[in-house]
Amino acid sequence: MMTTADREGPFYLEELRVGQRFISDTHLIDAHQIKAFAGEFDPQPFHLDEEAAQNTLFGSIAASGWHTAALTMKLLTAKPPFAGGIIGAGGNIAWPRPTRPGDILQVTSEIIEIIPSQSHPGRGRVILRAETRNQRGELVQVLTARLVVPKRDGSAEPKRQ
Amino acid sequence: MMTTADREGPFYLEELRVGQRFISDTHLIDAHQIKAFAGEFDPQPFHLDEEAAQNTLFGSIAASGWHTAALTMKLLTAKPPFAGGIIGAGGNIAWPRPTRPGDILQVTSEIIEIIPSQSHPGRGRVILRAETRNQRGELVQVLTARLVVPKRDGSAEPKRQ
Repeated sequence: MMTTADREGPFYLEELRVGQRFISDTHLIDAHQIKAFAGEFDPQPFHLDEEAAQNTLFGSIAASGWHTAALTMKLLTAKPPFAGGIIGAGGNIAWPRPTRPGDILQVTSEIIEIIPSQSHPGRGRVILRAETRNQRGELVQVLTARLVVPKRDGSAEPKRQ
Repeated sequence: MMTTADREGPFYLEELRVGQRFISDTHLIDAHQIKAFAGEFDPQPFHLDEEAAQNTLFGSIAASGWHTAALTMKLLTAKPPFAGGIIGAGGNIAWPRPTRPGDILQVTSEIIEIIPSQSHPGRGRVILRAETRNQRGELVQVLTARLVVPKRDGSAEPKRQ
């Protein structure tokens, strides 16, 4: 993962700034991966069968949106920009178009907001907008994630239940 | 999947009503599944290694949030309530607490809103709130999803690009 920041991280909360951007490596998805994921988690015809997909909204085989989301996470975690890893509390996700076999996915992410925690002084929240695009630069997913990021001296932080 | 509606579906857009609820089957998640998913999509210590997880925010091993999301989809699609399957355009997701090994997940979903499409007369949007709980009834995920659902006579619908 490259970053437009001075160094590559991982960064603690105090070292982050709004506008900081990160560019992931790439992932090539193929029909085998699409069918394997869908077979386990989203076994619908438009994810599993080329012929059956033709008579659906998708027109041809497409990856489960959750597969796109999982691959986005894989790309984000390959070299996590944040100390403590990428810990998500949730977020907003949109799939403007399907991921297709042969797509090469890449994630560009940007820090939108940094919110120190009132209740947990050892950490804070970071709002990260992560855009996942295919090799034609077309958006396949936009994720605006709420992440938990520790401060450099957050060692007294109580564990999550 | 049971439903509180008169019949089990699948339902076309015209047959849905706000407040309609669906209860999924259950899924038992174990440490093996958690590590397999994380190894492929979210290889962070708190998802992969019991000992390493102790020194993280999670305190002990926890499933990737995307694993909880994928299993929620698996439960929703086991007997899809909607004609045409479950086709998501996106949504809002929150993980109020982690999914742990041994958790038995179940999804209760409810139709929040039904929006006929102006641009695509053959279909509409359904806002579905899907709550995923563990065997203690604790919320592990809340997903408010924007879904595409066809009308009964939507055969002239153009395919998605």
